Amino acid sequence: MPEPHELRIPVRYSETDQMGVVHHGSYVIWLEEGRTALMASLGFPYDEVEKRGFAMAVRNLDLRYREPAKYGDTVLVRTTVERFRSASILYHYEVLRELDQRRLAEGAAEVACLNLRRGWAPAQLPTDIRTALENYLNGPT
Amino acid sequence: MPEPHELRIPVRYSETDQMGVVHHGSYVIWLEEGRTALMASLGFPYDEVEKRGFAMAVRNLDLRYREPAKYGDTVLVRTTVERFRSASILYHYEVLRELDQRRLAEGAAEVACLNLRRGWAPAQLPTDIRTALENYLNGPT
Amino acid sequence: MPEPHELRIPVRYSETDQMGVVHHGSYVIWLEEGRTALMASLGFPYDEVEKRGFAMAVRNLDLRYREPAKYGDTVLVRTTVERFRSASILYHYEVLRELDQRRLAEGAAEVACLNLRRGWAPAQLPTDIRTALENYLNGPT
Amino acid sequence: MPEPHELRIPVRYSETDQMGVVHHGSYVIWLEEGRTALMASLGFPYDEVEKRGFAMAVRNLDLRYREPAKYGDTVLVRTTVERFRSASILYHYEVLRELDQRRLAEGAAEVACLNLRRGWAPAQLPTDIRTALENYLNGPT
Repeated sequence: MPEPHELRIPVRYSETDQMGVVHHGSYVIWLEEGRTALMASLGFPYDEVEKRGFAMAVRNLDLRYREPAKYGDTVLVRTTVERFRSASILYHYEVLRELDQRRLAEGAAEVACLNLRRGWAPAQLPTDIRTALENYLNGPT
Repeated sequence: MPEPHELRIPVRYSETDQMGVVHHGSYVIWLEEGRTALMASLGFPYDEVEKRGFAMAVRNLDLRYREPAKYGDTVLVRTTVERFRSASILYHYEVLRELDQRRLAEGAAEVACLNLRRGWAPAQLPTDIRTALENYLNGPT
Repeated sequence: MPEPHELRIPVRYSETDQMGVVHHGSYVIWLEEGRTALMASLGFPYDEVEKRGFAMAVRNLDLRYREPAKYGDTVLVRTTVERFRSASILYHYEVLRELDQRRLAEGAAEVACLNLRRGWAPAQLPTDIRTALENYLNGPT
Repeated sequence: MPEPHELRIPVRYSETDQMGVVHHGSYVIWLEEGRTALMASLGFPYDEVEKRGFAMAVRNLDLRYREPAKYGDTVLVRTTVERFRSASILYHYEVLRELDQRRLAEGAAEVACLNLRRGWAPAQLPTDIRTALENYLNGPT
Protein backbone atom coordinates (compact mmCIF):
# COMPACT_ATOMS: atom_id res chain seq x y z
CA MET A 1 0.00 0.00 0.00
CA PRO A 2 1.46 3.40 -0.92
CA GLU A 3 1.78 6.21 1.59
CA PRO A 4 -1.41 8.30 1.70
CA HIS A 5 -1.34 11.72 0.17
CA GLU A 6 -1.79 14.31 2.90
CA LEU A 7 -3.61 17.58 2.39
CA ARG A 8 -3.58 20.15 5.20
CA ILE A 9 -6.80 22.14 5.57
CA PRO A 10 -7.37 24.81 8.24
CA VAL A 11 -11.07 24.73 9.20
CA ARG A 12 -13.01 27.70 7.82
CA TYR A 13 -15.50 29.50 10.02
CA SER A 14 -18.20 29.03 7.39
CA GLU A 15 -17.69 25.26 7.62
CA THR A 16 -19.12 25.21 11.15
CA ASP A 17 -22.80 25.11 12.07
CA GLN A 18 -24.70 26.09 15.17
CA MET A 19 -23.89 22.77 16.82
CA GLY A 20 -20.55 24.50 17.38
CA VAL A 21 -18.53 22.08 15.27
CA VAL A 22 -17.83 21.51 11.59
CA HIS A 23 -20.95 20.61 9.59
CA HIS A 24 -20.83 17.02 8.34
CA GLY A 25 -21.22 18.22 4.75
CA SER A 26 -17.92 20.12 4.89
CA TYR A 27 -15.99 16.85 5.01
CA VAL A 28 -17.37 15.95 1.57
CA ILE A 29 -15.68 19.06 0.17
CA TRP A 30 -12.44 18.18 1.95
CA LEU A 31 -12.40 14.67 0.51
CA GLU A 32 -12.83 16.09 -2.98
CA GLU A 33 -9.87 18.40 -2.41
CA GLY A 34 -7.95 15.40 -1.05
CA ARG A 35 -8.44 13.24 -4.12
CA THR A 36 -7.81 16.03 -6.62
CA ALA A 37 -4.62 16.94 -4.73
CA LEU A 38 -3.51 13.30 -4.87
CA MET A 39 -4.19 13.11 -8.62
CA ALA A 40 -2.43 16.45 -9.15
CA SER A 41 0.60 15.06 -7.29
CA LEU A 42 0.64 12.18 -9.82
CA GLY A 43 0.65 14.69 -12.68
CA PHE A 44 -3.07 15.02 -13.36
CA PRO A 45 -4.54 18.30 -12.11
CA TYR A 46 -8.28 18.01 -12.52
CA ASP A 47 -8.63 21.16 -14.61
CA GLU A 48 -6.40 19.52 -17.23
CA VAL A 49 -8.34 16.26 -17.03
CA GLU A 50 -11.48 18.25 -17.83
CA LYS A 51 -9.78 20.06 -20.71
CA ARG A 52 -8.96 16.66 -22.18
CA GLY A 53 -12.68 15.95 -22.16
CA PHE A 54 -13.03 13.70 -19.16
CA ALA A 55 -14.96 14.04 -15.94
CA MET A 56 -14.46 12.04 -12.78
CA ALA A 57 -17.95 11.87 -11.29
CA VAL A 58 -18.68 10.61 -7.79
CA ARG A 59 -20.79 7.44 -7.85
CA ASN A 60 -20.58 6.34 -4.23
CA LEU A 61 -19.70 8.15 -1.07
CA ASP A 62 -19.37 6.73 2.43
CA LEU A 63 -18.39 8.63 5.51
CA ARG A 64 -18.06 7.61 9.13
CA TYR A 65 -17.80 10.46 11.60
CA ARG A 66 -15.92 9.70 14.85
CA GLU A 67 -15.11 13.02 16.52
CA PRO A 68 -16.03 16.53 15.47
CA ALA A 69 -13.56 18.88 13.84
CA LYS A 70 -13.75 22.36 15.34
CA TYR A 71 -13.00 25.88 14.26
CA GLY A 72 -9.38 26.50 15.18
CA ASP A 73 -8.40 22.97 14.13
CA THR A 74 -6.34 22.18 11.10
CA VAL A 75 -7.29 18.85 9.59
CA LEU A 76 -5.21 16.47 7.55
CA VAL A 77 -6.97 14.66 4.73
CA ARG A 78 -5.12 11.42 4.02
CA THR A 79 -6.14 9.99 0.68
CA THR A 80 -5.17 6.70 -0.92
CA VAL A 81 -6.30 4.96 -4.08
CA GLU A 82 -7.65 1.69 -2.80
CA ARG A 83 -8.10 0.23 -6.26
CA PHE A 84 -9.03 1.21 -9.78
CA ARG A 85 -10.89 -0.50 -12.56
CA SER A 86 -11.09 0.23 -16.26
CA ALA A 87 -13.50 3.11 -15.77
CA SER A 88 -13.48 3.99 -12.07
CA ILE A 89 -11.25 4.76 -9.10
CA LEU A 90 -11.95 3.95 -5.46
CA TYR A 91 -10.43 6.35 -2.97
CA HIS A 92 -10.07 5.79 0.76
CA TYR A 93 -9.82 8.64 3.22
CA GLU A 94 -8.90 9.46 6.76
CA VAL A 95 -9.44 12.89 8.25
CA LEU A 96 -7.20 13.64 11.24
CA ARG A 97 -6.84 16.58 13.57
CA GLU A 98 -3.31 17.83 13.01
CA LEU A 99 -2.63 18.78 16.62
CA ASP A 100 -3.08 15.36 18.20
CA GLN A 101 -3.41 13.16 15.12
CA ARG A 102 -6.82 11.95 16.31
CA ARG A 103 -8.85 10.34 13.58
CA LEU A 104 -12.01 12.41 13.13
CA ALA A 105 -13.56 10.63 10.18
CA GLU A 106 -12.89 8.07 7.52
CA GLY A 107 -14.56 7.32 4.27
CA ALA A 108 -14.49 6.20 0.69
CA ALA A 109 -15.52 7.63 -2.65
CA GLU A 110 -15.81 5.87 -5.95
CA VAL A 111 -15.51 8.07 -9.01
CA ALA A 112 -16.42 7.06 -12.54
CA CYS A 113 -14.64 8.31 -15.64
CA LEU A 114 -17.02 9.95 -18.12
CA ASN A 115 -16.41 11.19 -21.65
CA LEU A 116 -17.68 14.78 -21.72
CA ARG A 117 -17.51 14.85 -25.52
CA ARG A 118 -19.65 11.74 -25.93
CA GLY A 119 -22.64 12.74 -23.88
CA TRP A 120 -21.10 11.81 -20.56
CA ALA A 121 -20.81 8.16 -21.53
CA PRO A 122 -18.78 5.97 -19.18
CA ALA A 123 -15.20 5.96 -20.45
CA GLN A 124 -12.03 4.00 -19.90
CA LEU A 125 -9.50 5.80 -17.75
CA PRO A 126 -6.97 7.44 -20.10
CA THR A 127 -3.86 5.27 -20.48
CA ASP A 128 -1.48 7.73 -18.83
CA ILE A 129 -3.70 7.98 -15.75
CA ARG A 130 -3.99 4.22 -15.65
CA THR A 131 -0.22 3.81 -15.84
CA ALA A 132 0.33 6.43 -13.16
CA LEU A 133 -2.13 4.67 -10.86
CA GLU A 134 -0.39 1.32 -11.43
CA ASN A 135 2.97 2.86 -10.54
CA TYR A 136 1.43 4.57 -7.54
CA LEU A 137 -0.09 1.34 -6.25
CA ASN A 138 3.07 -0.67 -6.84
CA GLY A 139 5.08 1.99 -5.06
CA PRO A 140 8.72 2.94 -5.57
CA THR A 141 10.92 0.02 -6.56
CA MET B 1 -43.18 0.51 6.06
CA PRO B 2 -44.65 4.01 6.39
CA GLU B 3 -44.99 6.34 3.43
CA PRO B 4 -41.82 8.37 2.96
CA HIS B 5 -41.88 12.01 3.87
CA GLU B 6 -41.43 14.08 0.73
CA LEU B 7 -39.61 17.40 0.64
CA ARG B 8 -39.63 19.42 -2.57
CA ILE B 9 -36.42 21.34 -3.29
CA PRO B 10 -35.86 23.50 -6.39
CA VAL B 11 -32.17 23.25 -7.32
CA ARG B 12 -30.24 26.42 -6.48
CA TYR B 13 -27.74 27.81 -8.97
CA SER B 14 -25.04 27.81 -6.30
CA GLU B 15 -25.54 24.06 -5.87
CA THR B 16 -24.11 23.38 -9.32
CA ASP B 17 -20.44 23.14 -10.22
CA GLN B 18 -18.54 23.58 -13.43
CA MET B 19 -19.33 20.01 -14.47
CA GLY B 20 -22.69 21.61 -15.33
CA VAL B 21 -24.70 19.60 -12.84
CA VAL B 22 -25.40 19.67 -9.11
CA HIS B 23 -22.29 19.15 -6.98
CA HIS B 24 -22.40 15.83 -5.11
CA GLY B 25 -22.00 17.63 -1.81
CA SER B 26 -25.29 19.47 -2.27
CA TYR B 27 -27.23 16.24 -1.81
CA VAL B 28 -25.85 15.96 1.73
CA ILE B 29 -27.54 19.26 2.55
CA TRP B 30 -30.78 18.07 0.96
CA LEU B 31 -30.81 14.86 3.01
CA GLU B 32 -30.39 16.88 6.19
CA GLU B 33 -33.35 19.04 5.22
CA GLY B 34 -35.28 15.86 4.42
CA ARG B 35 -34.78 14.27 7.81
CA THR B 36 -35.41 17.45 9.78
CA ALA B 37 -38.61 18.00 7.77
CA LEU B 38 -39.72 14.44 8.54
CA MET B 39 -39.03 14.92 12.26
CA ALA B 40 -40.81 18.30 12.21
CA SER B 41 -43.83 16.58 10.62
CA LEU B 42 -43.84 14.20 13.61
CA GLY B 43 -43.87 17.17 15.97
CA PHE B 44 -40.16 17.63 16.60
CA PRO B 45 -38.70 20.64 14.80
CA TYR B 46 -34.96 20.43 15.24
CA ASP B 47 -34.59 23.90 16.74
CA GLU B 48 -36.81 22.75 19.60
CA VAL B 49 -34.88 19.51 19.99
CA GLU B 50 -31.73 21.61 20.42
CA LYS B 51 -33.43 23.89 22.94
CA ARG B 52 -34.25 20.80 25.00
CA GLY B 53 -30.52 20.10 25.11
CA PHE B 54 -30.18 17.37 22.52
CA ALA B 55 -28.25 17.14 19.30
CA MET B 56 -28.75 14.60 16.55
CA ALA B 57 -25.25 14.20 15.11
CA VAL B 58 -24.53 12.34 11.89
CA ARG B 59 -22.41 9.25 12.50
CA ASN B 60 -22.62 7.52 9.13
CA LEU B 61 -23.50 8.74 5.70
CA ASP B 62 -23.83 6.73 2.51
CA LEU B 63 -24.81 8.06 -0.87
CA ARG B 64 -25.14 6.42 -4.24
CA TYR B 65 -25.42 8.81 -7.19
CA ARG B 66 -27.27 7.48 -10.24
CA GLU B 67 -28.11 10.44 -12.46
CA PRO B 68 -27.19 14.09 -12.06
CA ALA B 69 -29.67 16.68 -10.87
CA LYS B 70 -29.47 19.84 -12.96
CA TYR B 71 -30.24 23.49 -12.50
CA GLY B 72 -33.85 23.93 -13.53
CA ASP B 73 -34.82 20.64 -11.87
CA THR B 74 -36.89 20.40 -8.75
CA VAL B 75 -35.93 17.39 -6.68
CA LEU B 76 -38.02 15.39 -4.24
CA VAL B 77 -36.25 14.10 -1.16
CA ARG B 78 -38.09 11.05 0.13
CA THR B 79 -37.08 10.22 3.66
CA THR B 80 -38.03 7.26 5.82
CA VAL B 81 -36.91 6.11 9.22
CA GLU B 82 -35.53 2.67 8.54
CA ARG B 83 -35.08 1.82 12.20
CA PHE B 84 -34.15 3.41 15.48
CA ARG B 85 -32.28 2.22 18.53
CA SER B 86 -32.10 3.59 22.05
CA ALA B 87 -29.70 6.35 21.06
CA SER B 88 -29.71 6.57 17.26
CA ILE B 89 -31.95 6.79 14.20
CA LEU B 90 -31.25 5.36 10.76
CA TYR B 91 -32.79 7.29 7.88
CA HIS B 92 -33.14 6.08 4.32
CA TYR B 93 -33.39 8.47 1.38
CA GLU B 94 -34.31 8.64 -2.24
CA VAL B 95 -33.78 11.76 -4.30
CA LEU B 96 -36.01 11.98 -7.38
CA ARG B 97 -36.36 14.46 -10.20
CA GLU B 98 -39.91 15.77 -9.86
CA LEU B 99 -40.57 16.07 -13.58
CA ASP B 100 -40.12 12.42 -14.54
CA GLN B 101 -39.80 10.81 -11.12
CA ARG B 102 -36.39 9.42 -12.07
CA ARG B 103 -34.35 8.32 -9.10
CA LEU B 104 -31.20 10.44 -9.04
CA ALA B 105 -29.66 9.22 -5.82
CA GLU B 106 -30.31 7.15 -2.75
CA GLY B 107 -28.65 6.99 0.58
CA ALA B 108 -28.72 6.51 4.29
CA ALA B 109 -27.68 8.50 7.33
CA GLU B 110 -27.37 7.35 10.90
CA VAL B 111 -27.68 10.04 13.52
CA ALA B 112 -26.78 9.67 17.18
CA CYS B 113 -28.56 11.43 20.01
CA LEU B 114 -26.18 13.50 22.17
CA ASN B 115 -26.78 15.34 25.42
CA LEU B 116 -25.52 18.88 24.88
CA ARG B 117 -25.69 19.62 28.59
CA ARG B 118 -23.55 16.63 29.54
CA GLY B 119 -20.57 17.26 27.34
CA TRP B 120 -22.09 15.77 24.24
CA ALA B 121 -22.39 12.35 25.83
CA PRO B 122 -24.42 9.75 23.90
CA ALA B 123 -27.97 9.97 25.15
CA GLN B 124 -31.16 7.95 24.97
CA LEU B 125 -33.69 9.34 22.55
CA PRO B 126 -36.24 11.36 24.55
CA THR B 127 -39.32 9.29 25.32
CA ASP B 128 -41.72 11.41 23.27
CA ILE B 129 -39.50 11.13 20.20
CA ARG B 130 -39.18 7.40 20.74
CA THR B 131 -42.97 7.01 21.02
CA ALA B 132 -43.53 9.10 17.91
CA LEU B 133 -41.06 6.99 15.95
CA GLU B 134 -42.78 3.80 17.10
CA ASN B 135 -46.15 5.14 15.96
CA TYR B 136 -44.62 6.31 12.70
CA LEU B 137 -43.08 2.91 12.00
CA ASN B 138 -46.24 1.02 12.93
CA GLY B 139 -48.25 3.28 10.70
CA PRO B 140 -51.87 4.33 10.99
CA THR B 141 -54.09 1.71 12.57
CA MET C 1 -42.33 51.05 -8.37
CA PRO C 2 -43.68 47.52 -8.93
CA GLU C 3 -44.49 45.19 -6.07
CA PRO C 4 -41.42 43.22 -5.03
CA HIS C 5 -41.25 39.56 -5.92
CA GLU C 6 -41.33 37.49 -2.74
CA LEU C 7 -39.50 34.21 -2.33
CA ARG C 8 -40.07 32.18 0.82
CA ILE C 9 -37.00 30.32 2.11
CA PRO C 10 -36.96 28.17 5.26
CA VAL C 11 -33.50 28.48 6.83
CA ARG C 12 -31.39 25.36 6.36
CA TYR C 13 -29.35 24.00 9.25
CA SER C 14 -26.22 24.05 7.09
CA GLU C 15 -26.71 27.79 6.59
CA THR C 16 -25.92 28.48 10.24
CA ASP C 17 -22.47 28.80 11.77
CA GLN C 18 -21.16 28.40 15.30
CA MET C 19 -22.18 31.94 16.17
CA GLY C 20 -25.62 30.28 16.42
CA VAL C 21 -27.19 32.27 13.59
CA VAL C 22 -27.22 32.18 9.80
CA HIS C 23 -23.77 32.77 8.26
CA HIS C 24 -23.62 36.08 6.39
CA GLY C 25 -22.61 34.30 3.20
CA SER C 26 -25.90 32.39 3.09
CA TYR C 27 -27.78 35.60 2.28
CA VAL C 28 -25.80 35.90 -0.96
CA ILE C 29 -27.26 32.57 -2.07
CA TRP C 30 -30.75 33.70 -1.07
CA LEU C 31 -30.47 36.91 -3.10
CA GLU C 32 -29.45 34.91 -6.15
CA GLU C 33 -32.50 32.68 -5.72
CA GLY C 34 -34.59 35.84 -5.28
CA ARG C 35 -33.53 37.45 -8.53
CA THR C 36 -33.73 34.25 -10.58
CA ALA C 37 -37.24 33.63 -9.17
CA LEU C 38 -38.24 37.17 -10.14
CA MET C 39 -36.91 36.72 -13.66
CA ALA C 40 -38.60 33.30 -13.93
CA SER C 41 -41.88 34.95 -12.91
CA LEU C 42 -41.41 37.34 -15.86
CA GLY C 43 -40.96 34.39 -18.21
CA PHE C 44 -37.18 33.99 -18.14
CA PRO C 45 -36.02 31.00 -16.10
CA TYR C 46 -32.27 31.28 -15.87
CA ASP C 47 -31.58 27.81 -17.27
CA GLU C 48 -33.28 28.94 -20.49
CA VAL C 49 -31.36 32.21 -20.53
CA GLU C 50 -28.15 30.17 -20.39
CA LYS C 51 -29.33 27.85 -23.16
CA ARG C 52 -29.82 30.91 -25.34
CA GLY C 53 -26.16 31.71 -24.79
CA PHE C 54 -26.32 34.44 -22.20
CA ALA C 55 -25.00 34.70 -18.68
CA MET C 56 -26.03 37.22 -16.06
CA ALA C 57 -22.86 37.69 -14.03
CA VAL C 58 -22.75 39.55 -10.73
CA ARG C 59 -20.61 42.68 -10.95
CA ASN C 60 -21.46 44.42 -7.68
CA LEU C 61 -22.90 43.17 -4.47
CA ASP C 62 -23.85 45.16 -1.38
CA LEU C 63 -25.38 43.82 1.77
CA ARG C 64 -26.33 45.45 5.03
CA TYR C 65 -27.09 43.06 7.89
CA ARG C 66 -29.48 44.34 10.55
CA GLU C 67 -30.64 41.36 12.60
CA PRO C 68 -29.59 37.74 12.37
CA ALA C 69 -31.76 35.09 10.77
CA LYS C 70 -31.89 31.94 12.85
CA TYR C 71 -32.51 28.27 12.28
CA GLY C 72 -36.24 27.75 12.66
CA ASP C 73 -36.95 31.03 10.84
CA THR C 74 -38.45 31.26 7.39
CA VAL C 75 -37.19 34.28 5.51
CA LEU C 76 -38.85 36.25 2.76
CA VAL C 77 -36.58 37.56 0.03
CA ARG C 78 -38.21 40.60 -1.56
CA THR C 79 -36.60 41.43 -4.87
CA THR C 80 -37.21 44.37 -7.17
CA VAL C 81 -35.51 45.55 -10.32
CA GLU C 82 -34.35 49.02 -9.41
CA ARG C 83 -33.26 49.87 -12.94
CA PHE C 84 -31.73 48.31 -16.00
CA ARG C 85 -29.39 49.54 -18.67
CA SER C 86 -28.55 48.18 -22.10
CA ALA C 87 -26.32 45.47 -20.68
CA SER C 88 -27.00 45.24 -16.96
CA ILE C 89 -29.74 44.96 -14.34
CA LEU C 90 -29.68 46.41 -10.84
CA TYR C 91 -31.68 44.45 -8.26
CA HIS C 92 -32.67 45.65 -4.83
CA TYR C 93 -33.41 43.27 -1.96
CA GLU C 94 -34.96 43.06 1.43
CA VAL C 95 -34.75 39.95 3.57
CA LEU C 96 -37.50 39.70 6.20
CA ARG C 97 -38.29 37.20 8.91
CA GLU C 98 -41.69 35.81 7.94
CA LEU C 99 -43.00 35.50 11.49
CA ASP C 100 -42.81 39.15 12.50
CA GLN C 101 -41.90 40.79 9.18
CA ARG C 102 -38.75 42.24 10.74
CA ARG C 103 -36.22 43.38 8.17
CA LEU C 104 -33.08 41.31 8.67
CA ALA C 105 -31.00 42.57 5.78
CA GLU C 106 -31.14 44.63 2.65
CA GLY C 107 -28.92 44.82 -0.35
CA ALA C 108 -28.33 45.30 -4.03
CA ALA C 109 -26.74 43.34 -6.82
CA GLU C 110 -25.83 44.50 -10.28
CA VAL C 111 -25.62 41.79 -12.90
CA ALA C 112 -24.07 42.18 -16.33
CA CYS C 113 -25.29 40.39 -19.45
CA LEU C 114 -22.53 38.37 -21.12
CA ASN C 115 -22.51 36.52 -24.42
CA LEU C 116 -21.30 33.01 -23.67
CA ARG C 117 -20.78 32.28 -27.37
CA ARG C 118 -18.58 35.31 -27.91
CA GLY C 119 -16.01 34.72 -25.22
CA TRP C 120 -18.09 36.18 -22.44
CA ALA C 121 -18.16 39.60 -24.07
CA PRO C 122 -20.55 42.15 -22.54
CA ALA C 123 -23.83 41.86 -24.40
CA GLN C 124 -27.02 43.84 -24.78
CA LEU C 125 -29.92 42.39 -22.84
CA PRO C 126 -32.02 40.32 -25.27
CA THR C 127 -34.96 42.34 -26.59
CA ASP C 128 -37.64 40.18 -25.00
CA ILE C 129 -36.03 40.48 -21.57
CA ARG C 130 -35.69 44.23 -22.08
CA THR C 131 -39.36 44.54 -23.01
CA ALA C 132 -40.44 42.44 -20.06
CA LEU C 133 -38.40 44.59 -17.69
CA GLU C 134 -39.94 47.76 -19.14
CA ASN C 135 -43.43 46.36 -18.61
CA TYR C 136 -42.48 45.22 -15.12
CA LEU C 137 -41.15 48.65 -14.16
CA ASN C 138 -44.13 50.47 -15.66
CA GLY C 139 -46.49 48.16 -13.80
CA PRO C 140 -49.94 46.95 -14.79
CA THR C 141 -51.92 49.45 -16.88
CA MET D 1 -1.00 52.33 5.34
CA PRO D 2 0.38 48.96 6.51
CA GLU D 3 1.19 46.15 4.10
CA PRO D 4 -1.88 44.02 3.42
CA HIS D 5 -2.03 40.58 4.95
CA GLU D 6 -1.95 37.98 2.18
CA LEU D 7 -3.78 34.67 2.35
CA ARG D 8 -3.20 32.11 -0.39
CA ILE D 9 -6.26 30.06 -1.33
CA PRO D 10 -6.30 27.39 -4.05
CA VAL D 11 -9.76 27.41 -5.66
CA ARG D 12 -11.86 24.41 -4.64
CA TYR D 13 -13.89 22.55 -7.25
CA SER D 14 -17.02 22.98 -5.14
CA GLU D 15 -16.54 26.75 -5.29
CA THR D 16 -17.34 26.79 -9.01
CA ASP D 17 -20.78 26.83 -10.58
CA GLN D 18 -22.09 25.81 -13.96
CA MET D 19 -21.06 29.15 -15.46
CA GLY D 20 -17.64 27.48 -15.40
CA VAL D 21 -16.06 29.94 -12.98
CA VAL D 22 -16.05 30.52 -9.23
CA HIS D 23 -19.49 31.36 -7.81
CA HIS D 24 -19.66 34.94 -6.56
CA GLY D 25 -20.67 33.74 -3.10
CA SER D 26 -17.38 31.89 -2.66
CA TYR D 27 -15.50 35.19 -2.43
CA VAL D 28 -17.47 36.05 0.71
CA ILE D 29 -16.01 32.98 2.39
CA TRP D 30 -12.52 33.91 1.22
CA LEU D 31 -12.81 37.43 2.64
CA GLU D 32 -13.82 35.99 6.00
CA GLU D 33 -10.76 33.74 5.97
CA GLY D 34 -8.69 36.77 4.98
CA ARG D 35 -9.76 38.92 7.90
CA THR D 36 -9.53 36.13 10.48
CA ALA D 37 -6.03 35.30 9.19
CA LEU D 38 -5.03 38.96 9.52
CA MET D 39 -6.38 39.13 13.08
CA ALA D 40 -4.67 35.81 13.93
CA SER D 41 -1.39 37.28 12.64
CA LEU D 42 -1.87 40.14 15.12
CA GLY D 43 -2.32 37.64 17.95
CA PHE D 44 -6.08 37.22 17.97
CA PRO D 45 -7.23 33.92 16.48
CA TYR D 46 -10.99 34.14 16.21
CA ASP D 47 -11.67 30.98 18.19
CA GLU D 48 -9.96 32.66 21.17
CA VAL D 49 -11.89 35.88 20.63
CA GLU D 50 -15.09 33.83 20.86
CA LYS D 51 -13.90 32.04 24.00
CA ARG D 52 -13.41 35.46 25.60
CA GLY D 53 -17.09 36.11 24.91
CA PHE D 54 -16.94 38.36 21.88
CA ALA D 55 -18.27 37.99 18.37
CA MET D 56 -17.24 40.01 15.35
CA ALA D 57 -20.42 40.11 13.27
CA VAL D 58 -20.54 41.36 9.69
CA ARG D 59 -22.67 44.48 9.36
CA ASN D 60 -21.85 45.61 5.83
CA LEU D 61 -20.39 43.80 2.89
CA ASP D 62 -19.47 45.25 -0.50
CA LEU D 63 -17.93 43.37 -3.36
CA ARG D 64 -16.97 44.39 -6.86
CA TYR D 65 -16.21 41.55 -9.24
CA ARG D 66 -13.81 42.36 -12.11
CA GLU D 67 -12.65 39.06 -13.60
CA PRO D 68 -13.69 35.54 -12.72
CA ALA D 69 -11.49 33.22 -10.68
CA LYS D 70 -11.36 29.74 -12.18
CA TYR D 71 -10.75 26.24 -10.98
CA GLY D 72 -7.01 25.68 -11.25
CA ASP D 73 -6.30 29.22 -10.05
CA THR D 74 -4.82 30.05 -6.70
CA VAL D 75 -6.09 33.35 -5.38
CA LEU D 76 -4.44 35.78 -3.01
CA VAL D 77 -6.71 37.54 -0.56
CA ARG D 78 -5.08 40.81 0.47
CA THR D 79 -6.69 42.21 3.59
CA THR D 80 -6.08 45.51 5.32
CA VAL D 81 -7.78 47.24 8.22
CA GLU D 82 -8.95 50.49 6.73
CA ARG D 83 -10.04 51.94 10.04
CA PHE D 84 -11.57 50.94 13.34
CA ARG D 85 -13.92 52.62 15.76
CA SER D 86 -14.77 51.88 19.36
CA ALA D 87 -16.99 48.95 18.45
CA SER D 88 -16.30 48.08 14.82
CA ILE D 89 -13.56 47.34 12.29
CA LEU D 90 -13.62 48.16 8.58
CA TYR D 91 -11.63 45.77 6.39
CA HIS D 92 -10.63 46.35 2.79
CA TYR D 93 -9.90 43.50 0.41
CA GLU D 94 -8.34 42.72 -2.90
CA VAL D 95 -8.54 39.27 -4.45
CA LEU D 96 -5.80 38.57 -6.99
CA ARG D 97 -4.98 35.65 -9.23
CA GLU D 98 -1.58 34.46 -8.04
CA LEU D 99 -0.27 33.52 -11.48
CA ASP D 100 -0.49 36.93 -13.11
CA GLN D 101 -1.37 39.13 -10.14
CA ARG D 102 -4.54 40.27 -11.92
CA ARG D 103 -7.07 41.85 -9.60
CA LEU D 104 -10.22 39.71 -9.72
CA ALA D 105 -12.29 41.46 -7.10
CA GLU D 106 -12.15 44.03 -4.37
CA GLY D 107 -14.38 44.74 -1.45
CA ALA D 108 -14.97 45.85 2.07
CA ALA D 109 -16.56 44.42 5.17
CA GLU D 110 -17.47 46.15 8.37
CA VAL D 111 -17.69 43.96 11.45
CA ALA D 112 -19.21 44.95 14.76
CA CYS D 113 -17.99 43.74 18.13
CA LEU D 114 -20.74 42.04 20.15
CA ASN D 115 -20.75 40.79 23.73
CA LEU D 116 -21.95 37.19 23.59
CA ARG D 117 -22.46 37.12 27.37
CA ARG D 118 -24.69 40.19 27.36
CA GLY D 119 -27.26 39.15 24.81
CA TRP D 120 -25.17 40.09 21.82
CA ALA D 121 -25.10 43.76 22.82
CA PRO D 122 -22.73 46.00 20.86
CA ALA D 123 -19.44 46.06 22.75
CA GLN D 124 -16.26 48.08 22.78
CA LEU D 125 -13.36 46.33 21.12
CA PRO D 126 -11.27 44.71 23.88
CA THR D 127 -8.31 46.94 24.81
CA ASP D 128 -5.64 44.54 23.64
CA ILE D 129 -7.27 44.24 20.19
CA ARG D 130 -7.58 48.01 20.04
CA THR D 131 -3.93 48.49 20.90
CA ALA D 132 -2.84 45.88 18.36
CA LEU D 133 -4.90 47.60 15.65
CA GLU D 134 -3.36 50.97 16.52
CA ASN D 135 0.13 49.51 16.24
CA TYR D 136 -0.81 47.78 13.01
CA LEU D 137 -2.15 50.98 11.47
CA ASN D 138 0.81 53.05 12.61
CA GLY D 139 3.17 50.45 11.22
CA PRO D 140 6.66 49.56 12.36
CA THR D 141 8.60 52.51 13.78
